[in-house]
Parts: sequence; structure tokens; C-alpha cells
Amino acid sequence: MRNNIPATVGMPVEEVDTPCLLVDLDALERNVDKLGRFMKAHGLRHRAHAKTHKSSDITVLQIERGGACGVCCQKVSEAEALVSAGIRDVLVSNQVVAPKKIERLAALATRARVLVCVDDLGNVDDLSAAAVKYGVTLECLVEIDVGAGRCGVAPGEPAVAIAQKIAAAPGLSFAGLQAYQGKAQHVRDYGERKALIQTAIDETKRTVDLLKGVGLDCAIVAGAGTGSFAMEGGSGVYNELQCGSYVFMDADYQRVKDAEGRPIAEFENSLFIYTAIMSKAKADVAICDAGLKAQSIDSGLPVVFGRDDVEYIKCSDEHGVISDPGNVLTLNERLKLIPGHCDPTVNVYDWYVGVRNGRVEAIWPVTARGMTL
Amino acid sequence: MRNNIPATVGMPVEEVDTPCLLVDLDALERNVDKLGRFMKAHGLRHRAHAKTHKSSDITVLQIERGGACGVCCQKVSEAEALVSAGIRDVLVSNQVVAPKKIERLAALATRARVLVCVDDLGNVDDLSAAAVKYGVTLECLVEIDVGAGRCGVAPGEPAVAIAQKIAAAPGLSFAGLQAYQGKAQHVRDYGERKALIQTAIDETKRTVDLLKGVGLDCAIVAGAGTGSFAMEGGSGVYNELQCGSYVFMDADYQRVKDAEGRPIAEFENSLFIYTAIMSKAKADVAICDAGLKAQSIDSGLPVVFGRDDVEYIKCSDEHGVISDPGNVLTLNERLKLIPGHCDPTVNVYDWYVGVRNGRVEAIWPVTARGMTL
Repeated sequence: MRNNIPATVGMPVEEVDTPCLLVDLDALERNVDKLGRFMKAHGLRHRAHAKTHKSSDITVLQIERGGACGVCCQKVSEAEALVSAGIRDVLVSNQVVAPKKIERLAALATRARVLVCVDDLGNVDDLSAAAVKYGVTLECLVEIDVGAGRCGVAPGEPAVAIAQKIAAAPGLSFAGLQAYQGKAQHVRDYGERKALIQTAIDETKRTVDLLKGVGLDCAIVAGAGTGSFAMEGGSGVYNELQCGSYVFMDADYQRVKDAEGRPIAEFENSLFIYTAIMSKAKADVAICDAGLKAQSIDSGLPVVFGRDDVEYIKCSDEHGVISDPGNVLTLNERLKLIPGHCDPTVNVYDWYVGVRNGRVEAIWPVTARGMTL
Repeated sequence: MRNNIPATVGMPVEEVDTPCLLVDLDALERNVDKLGRFMKAHGLRHRAHAKTHKSSDITVLQIERGGACGVCCQKVSEAEALVSAGIRDVLVSNQVVAPKKIERLAALATRARVLVCVDDLGNVDDLSAAAVKYGVTLECLVEIDVGAGRCGVAPGEPAVAIAQKIAAAPGLSFAGLQAYQGKAQHVRDYGERKALIQTAIDETKRTVDLLKGVGLDCAIVAGAGTGSFAMEGGSGVYNELQCGSYVFMDADYQRVKDAEGRPIAEFENSLFIYTAIMSKAKADVAICDAGLKAQSIDSGLPVVFGRDDVEYIKCSDEHGVISDPGNVLTLNERLKLIPGHCDPTVNVYDWYVGVRNGRVEAIWPVTARGMTL
């Protein structure tokens, strides 16, 4: 898989092979710096979500340059890949219930600080047994469903019951709450988004207070994403934010609006699909080499960066159809596409090509690409 | 990337880690046999499309067991991966125009029979120069657009002009026509699909005859897919069919109807996403571990195989929401999902887990996974 490398360091960007993932390193660093300043100014921890980039290089940048306290992963195999690359503080912000996965999670805790989310009483027993077997402590966050409708128990008493069981279980420690409102992140309208997050904040606060009432303090109250982090960050309830997409941004986040109805513009597009025109047999369209295997179109088609004269209008397995009403595109011409959705797009590539001042500066592996287990 | 292996040979299927790609080997072999018999009975060549599976193991099965004459690939890097695995007859059923890609294609022709599609006069010069440089012959098919609206010149005179230039170019040989109607394959209605293919057949025949008129014979008249191959196969015009999806099938092909209005049922579902329930905190839904990074949903959500009591209703990055009105699913329970679209789903996985009689019989790499270049 590693033979499919699209560039060499020092190469002018125009010579990079296509399709591939291009990273604007200046924009990436500005995004990391900007969120780092926000977290510092507000006394918040940032646990960067590595599910977006799956890269140990970018994780190190977020920790060393951006001040992140560690990372989130969604899969045990993703966490393993990052720990193997030197990362030492990892939250699997997801349930781990399969016996083999629990075993691997406990083994991983011999090499790094490992936290995990829990939403089931029986799972507490299984995690505890594995932690005891490996002589480790697994820090557990009780995941509450604050509106996303995915994993997580109901806020309030059901969460307290799991927390109490964790606190009493050998090999486990109760570390706090996972309260991520994933459904709110891409809600276009600011007011609607804010209302969803306010509900999440209220439900989380209620649960924190109930836990306090039974003598359980939440060292970590975690959640938030790129679309809402200022809301959770200003709540006085959340203390550890999990923004991931902010490093890259994507076309769908451009459709999310701020309080004044403008696209949220705090962060820049730093990730692009670099593509070349491979067929120009028709006057009004061109065919590029980035199709479904070069991206995920679940959140819409990619947007051609910096061009309003051409448009990506159709995506099939291996091809993209580019509308070219002025017949201006030529064979082999390169375009930069803003992915519709960065996370699953990254997951089809083995390499990032980092570019600055028109030249390739870095070639980074997508460390945890395809780590589904 | 290769550490993320979900099974070992001999393991009961219930122990296989999730999410992963499961192949029903009996069903796969029946599909291969069935198409092989069709091709033999009709005196047609089958050039199996490897873009579907990207696997050298399945390619060998299609050639040795199914009688395929060789494979199609869509990318030079895909062709390189299969030639490196021992395949010796490869058509890149796509345009190759970037200078570095042309160079690699010519180099590949020192190791295998290599054919390529052409839809541009200038491209003929570039391919010829590379073929001469490497001392090889590149067999060229002129690609005509018979309705798909992607690559390919218009049928008729424009195709003849390119064919004549190929025939005269050092290092190239004119091998025939590529005339694939990709847009027709998934058209639901049989009559509508048949009309689209009839147009493709007519335009192809017209071009074949024009070529004959200038002394150019088409050794290969290529095209057709799983949704239409009997139509091209019975035309007397096409002689080399490129079916790919038939080996696996997918949920979208179940929506394509035959002449009697029934789902086309010639081939069986042999490919599944194996997934586990990872959260059951709510009575009426369960959360499984196969989300957007475990599949492509461009052609719709996956369908739960063999169950009508539960339904996959929502897909996010890492999770699938399964409607469970009877509250019958339990933590860790496994489900087999029929992918919405097999080709881009395969492209996110490193391994196939081949299963027969409830046990793992084979673990095959996805040889050309992520080969975008």
C-alpha cells in the first residue's frame, strides 16, 4: 500500500501525482494556533479528535504547538496506531464491548494513559476484569446521549448508576462524562444549533450535579465539536473539548452559519483533494480523476477551490464530471477540491502531501487509515 | 496498515472482529461459474473488472475458474499492483494522460500485456513516445462515449481519426473500441435500460463499420457491466465484456429490475460488511460499529442481510443506527450488511475474510486498495 506515494519532498506542487490529499501547511498551522489560543484564553483543555486526520504527525502538532492535552480516537485499532507512533494520552471516545477489543484496550493501557466511554452496566464488569488482568487502570467516562441519538445512556439517574458501578469496580476509575452533541455540529442555523447545544449543556449540568450529590466528581466533562465549541466552552460545565474538523474544515462546514448568518469562518480550508483533468473530449465538461474512491460524498459533492468558472457536478466510481461552460479547462490541468466531508475522505488515502510556498515540504502517512477494528 | 487483520484461518465466523468485509466463498464461486458459463455459451470473452474487488486472489479465480481472458483496471497503480501479484493481461479501461502515469504504463508493458483507452489525439503522441522509449507495444482502444457522459469521444468520425493516428504511431497498435455505457447499468426499469444499451450498440456498430471502411478491424469491441451484459453479449457487435460487480452484487443492484419487473437475480450477494452491536442503551434502536468509514453510502444505505425485523436507518462517521422496533438486538450481536455500493466500500478495507460452512477459510488482501494514482 505504501508504494502509492504521490510526491517527493521539494517537488513543486504542480508535479504532484493525482488524485491525492494536499495539506496547506500554513493554513493548518493557523487553525491549530487559533484553537489553541481559544482554549488557553478560556482555561479549557483541548483533546483533539484524531478521527478527523488519523495522523500521528498532526496529533503531535496539535499537542506540541496547539497545547492539546491528548487525543480522542473512535476505534481501539486507531488508538493502538497512535500509541505506537508515540502518543501517550488517548481517549477512545466510544464504547468498547467486544471481548477481544476490551483485551486490546487493557493491553494498550500498559503503554499509555487510556480512557474509554461506557453506556452499559454489564460492560463495566468486562472492562474491570480486563483491567485487573493487565494490572492497569482504565479511566471511564459515562457517555450520556444529549441529543445525538447514537450511543450513550439517558442523562441523569441512568448515568449515575453506571458511574457508581465504575467507581466501585477494581481496575477502573470514574473520570467524568462524555456528552457530545454530534447531531448539532452541522446544523446550518445558528439559533437552532445554539438551542440544541443549550439542551446538551443543561442535561450535562443536571447529571454533573446529581453525581456530585452522590460524592462523584467529574474531573472531565467532555464533548463539543468544530460547529459548537464556543458554546460548550462558555458554559462553565464542559472543561475538555474535542474539536477535530477545525484542522481541515470541509465544504459542508462552509454551509454552517454564525450568529450573523455568515458561513462560520474561524478556520480555513487546509485540506484539498488534488485532481487532474484526464479527459476533455467535450466542450462544456471536463472529466477529472477524483471519483468515489478518492472521497466520501455523504455530505455533498466537493467544491472546486478558488474557481467560480468551473463546478464539480457529478461523481462516479473513478471520475468526477466538471462543468466547464467556458471550455477553459485543459488536459492535465490540476484543480484543488474542498472535500464535502473531511473525515471519511481522509480514510481512503495512505498519504498527506504537505505543501508550503508552492513546494512539497512533508509527506505524512495517514497513520490510522482503515483502522476499523 | 496490515496489522489490522480481523480474523485467522479456521476461526468460527462469530469470532471474526468487526467491522470487516466478509465473503461467502460458495456464493462467490457460484457467481464466477455462472458468468463463465454464459460467456462460453455465447462465444464471448470476459475481461473481469478488477475495480470492483481490487484483489489478485479474486482475479485469479475469475481467470482460472471462470475463464476470464484478463482484467480491467481503472488506474495505473491498480494495474501495477495486479501485475506485481502475477496477473499478465491488463486493460487500463481509462485515459492515461499525466506524463508520469504514461511512463509507468509503458514500464508496466515490459512485464505484462497492457492495453489502454484513448480519447484524445495529443495523447496518442505521448503514449507512442513512451512506448518507443521502453521498447514495448501499448494496445490502444479508442473510447467512445455511448451515453455515459464521461470519458470518450463521440462515436463515428472522431473515433476513426484517433484510431488512424494510433495505427500509424510507433509503439502503439490499434486494438479496437471501448464502448461502456456506465450510466445504464443501474437504471431500474428494464425497458429503459434496454433502450439505452441499444443506442450504445447502434453507435458502436456504426463506428466499427466506419473503421472497417478505412481498413481498421476491431479485434476488441469492449464494454458492458453486470446490469446489461446479456444485451451487449447478444448484439453481435461486442465481443469482450467487462462485468465486475457480478462477483459481489450490492444493495443497489437489487433495485435493478429484469424484463418481468423482478429484481435481477442472476447473481447472489457474496460480499457483506460484518458488524457488531456496540450500544444498546435504547429500547427501539441499536448502534452498530459500521459507519461511513466502513462503507460508501453514495448509492444508499446498506441492507441487513437475512433479517426483516431490524433495519439500518442512519449512518454517521463511526456508527450505524439500526432500527430495532422489537428490542431484539443485544450487545455484541453480529449482523451482515449488504453494502449499498460494493466498489467504493471495498476500497476502505485492507482485508477480505473468506468464509465457508461457518468458518474462515481465506484471508485475502485487498491488493490494490487505495491505488488512486
